[in-house]
Amino acid sequence: MRFDGRKFDQIRPVNIVRNYTKYADGSVYIEVGDTKVICNVSIEEKVPLFLRGKGEGWITCEYSMLPRATQIRKMRDITKGKIDGRTVEIQRLIGRTLRSVVDLKALGEKTLWVDCDVIQADGGTRTTAITGAFIAIVEAINKLHKKKDFKIYPIRKYLSAVSVGIVNNEKLLDLCYEEDSNAQVDMNIIMTDDGQFVEIQGTGEQNPFSRKDMNELIDLAEIGVKKMIQIQKRSLKNDALWIGTGGEI
Amino acid sequence: MRFDGRKFDQIRPVNIVRNYTKYADGSVYIEVGDTKVICNVSIEEKVPLFLRGKGEGWITCEYSMLPRATQIRKMRDITKGKIDGRTVEIQRLIGRTLRSVVDLKALGEKTLWVDCDVIQADGGTRTTAITGAFIAIVEAINKLHKKKDFKIYPIRKYLSAVSVGIVNNEKLLDLCYEEDSNAQVDMNIIMTDDGQFVEIQGTGEQNPFSRKDMNELIDLAEIGVKKMIQIQKRSLKNDALWIGTGGEI
Amino acid sequence: MRFDGRKFDQIRPVNIVRNYTKYADGSVYIEVGDTKVICNVSIEEKVPLFLRGKGEGWITCEYSMLPRATQIRKMRDITKGKIDGRTVEIQRLIGRTLRSVVDLKALGEKTLWVDCDVIQADGGTRTTAITGAFIAIVEAINKLHKKKDFKIYPIRKYLSAVSVGIVNNEKLLDLCYEEDSNAQVDMNIIMTDDGQFVEIQGTGEQNPFSRKDMNELIDLAEIGVKKMIQIQKRSLKNDALWIGTGGEI
Amino acid sequence: MRFDGRKFDQIRPVNIVRNYTKYADGSVYIEVGDTKVICNVSIEEKVPLFLRGKGEGWITCEYSMLPRATQIRKMRDITKGKIDGRTVEIQRLIGRTLRSVVDLKALGEKTLWVDCDVIQADGGTRTTAITGAFIAIVEAINKLHKKKDFKIYPIRKYLSAVSVGIVNNEKLLDLCYEEDSNAQVDMNIIMTDDGQFVEIQGTGEQNPFSRKDMNELIDLAEIGVKKMIQIQKRSLKNDALWIGTGGEI
Amino acid sequence: MRFDGRKFDQIRPVNIVRNYTKYADGSVYIEVGDTKVICNVSIEEKVPLFLRGKGEGWITCEYSMLPRATQIRKMRDITKGKIDGRTVEIQRLIGRTLRSVVDLKALGEKTLWVDCDVIQADGGTRTTAITGAFIAIVEAINKLHKKKDFKIYPIRKYLSAVSVGIVNNEKLLDLCYEEDSNAQVDMNIIMTDDGQFVEIQGTGEQNPFSRKDMNELIDLAEIGVKKMIQIQKRSLKNDALWIGTGGEI
Amino acid sequence: MRFDGRKFDQIRPVNIVRNYTKYADGSVYIEVGDTKVICNVSIEEKVPLFLRGKGEGWITCEYSMLPRATQIRKMRDITKGKIDGRTVEIQRLIGRTLRSVVDLKALGEKTLWVDCDVIQADGGTRTTAITGAFIAIVEAINKLHKKKDFKIYPIRKYLSAVSVGIVNNEKLLDLCYEEDSNAQVDMNIIMTDDGQFVEIQGTGEQNPFSRKDMNELIDLAEIGVKKMIQIQKRSLKNDALWIGTGGEI
Repeated sequence: MRFDGRKFDQIRPVNIVRNYTKYADGSVYIEVGDTKVICNVSIEEKVPLFLRGKGEGWITCEYSMLPRATQIRKMRDITKGKIDGRTVEIQRLIGRTLRSVVDLKALGEKTLWVDCDVIQADGGTRTTAITGAFIAIVEAINKLHKKKDFKIYPIRKYLSAVSVGIVNNEKLLDLCYEEDSNAQVDMNIIMTDDGQFVEIQGTGEQNPFSRKDMNELIDLAEIGVKKMIQIQKRSLKNDALWIGTGGEI
Repeated sequence: MRFDGRKFDQIRPVNIVRNYTKYADGSVYIEVGDTKVICNVSIEEKVPLFLRGKGEGWITCEYSMLPRATQIRKMRDITKGKIDGRTVEIQRLIGRTLRSVVDLKALGEKTLWVDCDVIQADGGTRTTAITGAFIAIVEAINKLHKKKDFKIYPIRKYLSAVSVGIVNNEKLLDLCYEEDSNAQVDMNIIMTDDGQFVEIQGTGEQNPFSRKDMNELIDLAEIGVKKMIQIQKRSLKNDALWIGTGGEI
Repeated sequence: MRFDGRKFDQIRPVNIVRNYTKYADGSVYIEVGDTKVICNVSIEEKVPLFLRGKGEGWITCEYSMLPRATQIRKMRDITKGKIDGRTVEIQRLIGRTLRSVVDLKALGEKTLWVDCDVIQADGGTRTTAITGAFIAIVEAINKLHKKKDFKIYPIRKYLSAVSVGIVNNEKLLDLCYEEDSNAQVDMNIIMTDDGQFVEIQGTGEQNPFSRKDMNELIDLAEIGVKKMIQIQKRSLKNDALWIGTGGEI
Repeated sequence: MRFDGRKFDQIRPVNIVRNYTKYADGSVYIEVGDTKVICNVSIEEKVPLFLRGKGEGWITCEYSMLPRATQIRKMRDITKGKIDGRTVEIQRLIGRTLRSVVDLKALGEKTLWVDCDVIQADGGTRTTAITGAFIAIVEAINKLHKKKDFKIYPIRKYLSAVSVGIVNNEKLLDLCYEEDSNAQVDMNIIMTDDGQFVEIQGTGEQNPFSRKDMNELIDLAEIGVKKMIQIQKRSLKNDALWIGTGGEI
Repeated sequence: MRFDGRKFDQIRPVNIVRNYTKYADGSVYIEVGDTKVICNVSIEEKVPLFLRGKGEGWITCEYSMLPRATQIRKMRDITKGKIDGRTVEIQRLIGRTLRSVVDLKALGEKTLWVDCDVIQADGGTRTTAITGAFIAIVEAINKLHKKKDFKIYPIRKYLSAVSVGIVNNEKLLDLCYEEDSNAQVDMNIIMTDDGQFVEIQGTGEQNPFSRKDMNELIDLAEIGVKKMIQIQKRSLKNDALWIGTGGEI
Repeated sequence: MRFDGRKFDQIRPVNIVRNYTKYADGSVYIEVGDTKVICNVSIEEKVPLFLRGKGEGWITCEYSMLPRATQIRKMRDITKGKIDGRTVEIQRLIGRTLRSVVDLKALGEKTLWVDCDVIQADGGTRTTAITGAFIAIVEAINKLHKKKDFKIYPIRKYLSAVSVGIVNNEKLLDLCYEEDSNAQVDMNIIMTDDGQFVEIQGTGEQNPFSRKDMNELIDLAEIGVKKMIQIQKRSLKNDALWIGTGGEI
């Protein structure tokens, strides 16, 4: 029995609000348990310098927490004068994994800016952000789709993420903050709807872990990601019709 | 008849959610029309250097917008490497006006950090932030009150704010973005519930204005602030019992 | 009787040196009492990005104090690594109010950089800077005028500023530092020579103020600004011939 | 047959120079193929704020490249004004993995600063840095050991790292730059001498990968790490006598 | 015959205003030709970290130019976000040379902050700053002297500086901007009143120079410094009585 | 007899490794005693803004120390958020002196970036860097030479540098750290192979020095530089054939 009454292989309740803000091109408010994140996507009609003229698009992410998303107020980056290392890692992860399921050539010379802003943090903010941002990306790309801005629909697969970990020698799915802060091993798994891995990050800073442990944790993660992708599908409904079709438009 | 159907002396619909996030000591989500702001208050048990040892408290504000709170995505401060001037002006204004209705000596050596984060901006973000932050301050101070952390209840008055302006030669109350961006004259008025002025800022960058114009704008603002304070009272209900009593605890 | 012997409605002695430095396009050294400011204007033959190609000019201000302009040495901005909030507010105010009396379309695609550097600060540095900078702007524009760089003379009105405030319950004109640091209410009023308001900023951080107080303070300010504009006229003499004529050249 | 003549499961030649610089408390120059890194350890007799008074030590890493360690000169961080994201990720990884094999309580209130400076980068700089830094940590801890600065010898295990990846559909061990920049999947595996995992990071930005691929890559990585640990043992010789004994001193 | 009518071994007219600003502990306005610098000294009753508890004082300098001190407006350091290299060199030079003539042990645990702000730059700003700052240091130290803040009078010698250079193959004393910007060789010489050298910096970026050239330039500099020290003496009059006496107080 | 057994007019052993790293266009590892510096030159096919279109090249230098190049670990610049003053002075010196022996017009619109990274610092890092960087510049220019990238060979003279100083009243050549940190007077002399001076910097912060002292120190420096240039010649061998010929290619 876990801290919040869940079973070891159970994810927290998920709540998704679509089209959350009125200006963004894609906008999702997502709650996984008490973790709450706003994911806004903005379309920009140009690409970073290193891609200019190559006919390819780009997806980049910025991640931030409201100062009081956490138990103790965290100073804003601009007050400290620098982005903290954890933030850098997370935003790079989100951008990289979203790019892996989008056909950037099909997208064409556009940048999708993904802003993930954490309103409340209770464990798993990066995996929650990826799960929510994927839906916001679909909203933004469908907006382009309606304007027939590309020839081939660029989203190739669903993308979702969960955390797993070992807490008090138990392997658990979807850690809340209480569990996460006591975890011996902590993994974030990002997968597609055909069961492939986009990214796997596992750390045993407190306790190195065996290959057997790793395998059991990945088994758990596969359960969680599958569940998350079902929830994404329910939320997207007809907006998901083109995903993975590679269809011409 | 205005852009959104309102009369010249009518404020937009206001929606207030109390205790919005779970970690903050005071937390308010406020909507004034399509302007949406989260106001979180955090209590810190120390004061800035210049107040140490004087037995007095402090209230300070940080204001920020999500990058896509606006029609065009705005770069984050940390990406530009500096806070923009408008942000600095606004957070100084919010902090200063909140301090004006709190007895800082009664509060004692504590800092109240007020974080106003704009989720969606449709005109009047600074006045909305002040109106919401006041309620969050009450929540935070009542939390201290329950612990009997001070002898005299420190909130002396209600505080609320509205904008007024001249648009197409019409004097209007509570400008939305559409109106604000076309205003010839633009004023922000911050007042207390006994009809006194805490701050008045009027600018006619496009058109200098006469003293008569100024007086008529202030008349309008008085209507708006009165209305806003009624809404605050309705939202606070019993939590407002001690405001202005200067009562011993 | 005031601290320095003045009457409640009397401004301090004003001293203005024209063409103060030899490289600037307009250069004024101004003393109001012991407040001493150098106002230099530099003409740049381009405009900020947001104005490119619109055929309009721009006026921008940077304000700074020498570290020992004040009683206690203040660290330089570059040493702290950021501009302080008060500086940002002031330089935005100066730029905005100067722009309000200049026809930026008539000016054409040029930027006037206004540098206000405070040599000694004894209250009212921002209003002194505005009063001095206006004259330096006239010098710079007349320099362009001589080269027939525009068709319509761009300065539409005189611009001047004073502070007023309530100190020990007395309403006073043109506060020196001693008075300013004890003021219950503090206002800065920026006006044109036809008695219109360009900006009004009033703060009662210590004491909210009534509408009657506000009106009496504005009465005082009108006296002060009128006096300041007389002094500007005396200093400019023939250099002011074109101001407000909207004359073709 | 690989780019540089190696077999798919073969690491590059490794060269280690011990006690490389004269001031550092531990100093290792390590070459893995053409990747060349200086790893210096500095002992500081205090710990970061969050650990003060807990009787525990800390290990932190800073990673940097000489500007011309790479094919194209990279601007220095200080010139750009910020650390790049990749650097942040890497230095956090190195610090975290080194801490996992050191008993920080046994170390006591000291910080080991690990500086990894890349002289030449030809793929695998982060894994090379970990492998070299581990030896430098042993040097620094043995220096403390000689002074009997702790009761229990704090290094619990050997630590080493390699990269593996899929290049042109082939699974390869220890990628050089040429291979790395063409990899479909890229993993960094950090392990201890008893075959446990400290960190595993796998990314398929270009191509999501199957669980089977992942397992085969980890098999390869196990071969590589085992080899690297043999080389570390040969380099450390008698200096390694206490590793893993948990012996009292 | 030089650009401005001077002979090769003639310095420009010097004008010194003592006690220039009212708050600083020492304050000098100095003109050498059209180069104009304000030198303010502030006494702080503590020393930098590296000197704490050693019973010794410190002198440090900050040097800056008003943006329009030069022919082309220079961006402020805080706008660029960093101090420019030339500024750093100059302020280090001024601090270092002033310290060389003050007995820092006699001064005791105090810091003298020397702010040299250039109002107008026409060549030789650094040497002008040193010459002016020396007088301001005397003013500040005499202020301490009156309060009997030390036992031994700490100023050991006069300090003054000039530039010399080779322009169109002519060796010239005290270069103005016109000459300086065309110099093949450029030297700054800082000397004491007993003819000793505190610092000598000579650069032939355009043209390496012979030892003979160097000797002739130093001959010229000796003439210039001697003249400058006479001017300092005339300006200081009775305030200089204790300089160099090492007298007990 | 000196600290390390040398005579007063003897330089330390010099060791030079040519073509040290594989990517740089010129790359030298140089040891002077225990001072060890890597000098890498990178060719960029453009020049800074102020030179664009003038047909001239540029040489610029960045100097840095590894954090543990020194006895006490020094924080990295990026961690402090600013370059320290000493670094700025040194890199400006190196760039300036290298430019003095290169015909920048002959070089054409190219920038040579010179990175001097100190691996170990034992006195004289700036003079060692200049001596090593000169050779790396020759390597880079010869690389261009082979491609016939210019018409006139641009290196006009050899360039080398040494430090001299007065320690315990003895005049010494090539100070090591131990001597340098106790020096009363400290000079850096940069000369060409025809015995001309490119730069001379002498400081007597502790003790002003006489003209006679200066002359004797320069005598010593001339011995040292001559020796250093012999060593450069031996290291360059045939690669030096074109230096100083001004030959057409």
